[in-house]
Amino acid sequence: MKAIVIRKPGGPEALEWLEVEDPVAGPGEVVLEVVASAVNRADAMQRQGFYPPPPGAPPYPGLEASGRIIALGAGVTGWRVGDEVCALLGGGGYAERVRVPAGQLLPVPKGVSVEDAAGLPEVVCTVWSNVFMLGRLKVGESFLVHGGGSGIGTMAIQLAKAHGARVTCTVGGRDKTGRCRELGADEVIDYREQDFTEYGPYDVILDIIGAEYLARNVKALATKGRLVVIGLQGGAKGELDLGALLVKRAAVHATSLRARPLEEKAAIVESVRENVWPLIESGAVRPVIDRVLPMAEAAEAHRIMESSAHIGKILLRS
Amino acid sequence: MKAIVIRKPGGPEALEWLEVEDPVAGPGEVVLEVVASAVNRADAMQRQGFYPPPPGAPPYPGLEASGRIIALGAGVTGWRVGDEVCALLGGGGYAERVRVPAGQLLPVPKGVSVEDAAGLPEVVCTVWSNVFMLGRLKVGESFLVHGGGSGIGTMAIQLAKAHGARVTCTVGGRDKTGRCRELGADEVIDYREQDFTEYGPYDVILDIIGAEYLARNVKALATKGRLVVIGLQGGAKGELDLGALLVKRAAVHATSLRARPLEEKAAIVESVRENVWPLIESGAVRPVIDRVLPMAEAAEAHRIMESSAHIGKILLRS
Repeated sequence: MKAIVIRKPGGPEALEWLEVEDPVAGPGEVVLEVVASAVNRADAMQRQGFYPPPPGAPPYPGLEASGRIIALGAGVTGWRVGDEVCALLGGGGYAERVRVPAGQLLPVPKGVSVEDAAGLPEVVCTVWSNVFMLGRLKVGESFLVHGGGSGIGTMAIQLAKAHGARVTCTVGGRDKTGRCRELGADEVIDYREQDFTEYGPYDVILDIIGAEYLARNVKALATKGRLVVIGLQGGAKGELDLGALLVKRAAVHATSLRARPLEEKAAIVESVRENVWPLIESGAVRPVIDRVLPMAEAAEAHRIMESSAHIGKILLRS
Repeated sequence: MKAIVIRKPGGPEALEWLEVEDPVAGPGEVVLEVVASAVNRADAMQRQGFYPPPPGAPPYPGLEASGRIIALGAGVTGWRVGDEVCALLGGGGYAERVRVPAGQLLPVPKGVSVEDAAGLPEVVCTVWSNVFMLGRLKVGESFLVHGGGSGIGTMAIQLAKAHGARVTCTVGGRDKTGRCRELGADEVIDYREQDFTEYGPYDVILDIIGAEYLARNVKALATKGRLVVIGLQGGAKGELDLGALLVKRAAVHATSLRARPLEEKAAIVESVRENVWPLIESGAVRPVIDRVLPMAEAAEAHRIMESSAHIGKILLRS
């Protein structure tokens, strides 16, 4: 098969579409014929050599994919060859085939094309596990997500809104405002012109910036607020005002999905299937697809992602 | 009645035993005739003018007391005049009488004297709410408490041990080691000679130091670890390594008991009565009393507390 190979860490040009060995389903795994994969920020980090795949995962980038099951490993139950699925991956989605632990499979939701389903697993699992399972966002609470136009942002806005929260997002530039409002954002803040700490306070903040926003995020938290940091685009080390945190009886969580053990990923996928899939099948929450490129053009897809000009997910068609 | 009055914020000498107005039970409150109160670090902060009582609380120091109910306000059920109780207070324990919201009352546990019970409410509610309700310490997990000889420390060691955790504490000086081991500590670290980050990692850390320990506490956390900061003796602002926290999928909580709304205090007290009181009545967990002084000698009690020479609670007898 062919896959996107990173022979030498670097810029988007490091991504090469090359012939590699076919994957084989190990015990508890299936092999998918990939219809599409989707691009995530973490893929760019892996491309640059900063984010190695977890042990046991394929070496190629791609944290999610959709397609059809073509082989079942020993002990896999509940799935059949031919099933149309999407999957959360430890890596390897940028390929014609990929092996996946069966616990990370989800059926393609009714009403969503197999291709579009490629853009769901990573953002849905990330938002669900961090905003709801960890951050415990509740009806009537106030929620802030940074980067409202990103894949994470577009899904977080919709899911928080569907759960009865008041939703605010930040965006870089006014052109994304309309789309974020359409998805359900009650308030859209252009971080180039406005200071998000003047709005709020927020019960839950989902943050991909890290150090650069730490002080302001803590300032913007409500009493008993939960800041969940899932990205470090603005650096790792920042000053924390424990006094402010203590007065608010608040918490700073930092976490990532990829490094979690298989059983935790399976538990998240199960909870997503139970809690989020019905919202997608009812149409309350939709995959937001910016564009679809051929997988051989992964480098171009990375350039677009890194320009932040997109809204929603950039897919790679196999 | 008489109470300890802070006419002017300052050192221990600011605490004066003066005639003041008698308290009156408001709706949902009772009045206690105080047998004893106990000294907490927060009392010293209040004495210095840094920690005002929450709205509605008496202005005198004292976050806990024991005694007998002498009056019931409107709407109080489940308690009778003459009941021997101890209570979590928003303030006012350093007095001959104190009014208390009924939700903050606990019966004097069987096997404990009314006087000794004065040393239980604040430390038990603090440790239970932070280490168990918030930090979710589980059987077999590893627990670190800083200041093993303090009131909080002596209670945290016992409660964590009673719940099947592996318990480590730090102390300042070898003379406290034996007592902490006797209470159940598996490992006692003298912070003057040893670096606690070389031990561990810890699933839950209960911290009273704040900024000065933040980096080392994060370093010492286990995967999915929870750091709970309840004091800022070492400053409020410190550098947080979000990268380290993210890799560990860990959390930093900061909280305080005194500022919580009445219904949260009542929920904590109820959970303590259900979960901790049986351990005290069975003898598995005991109040640790360093010494008892007359209430008029509150200044001397504060000097002893601030020297950190004590182990466990310093009580004030009314």
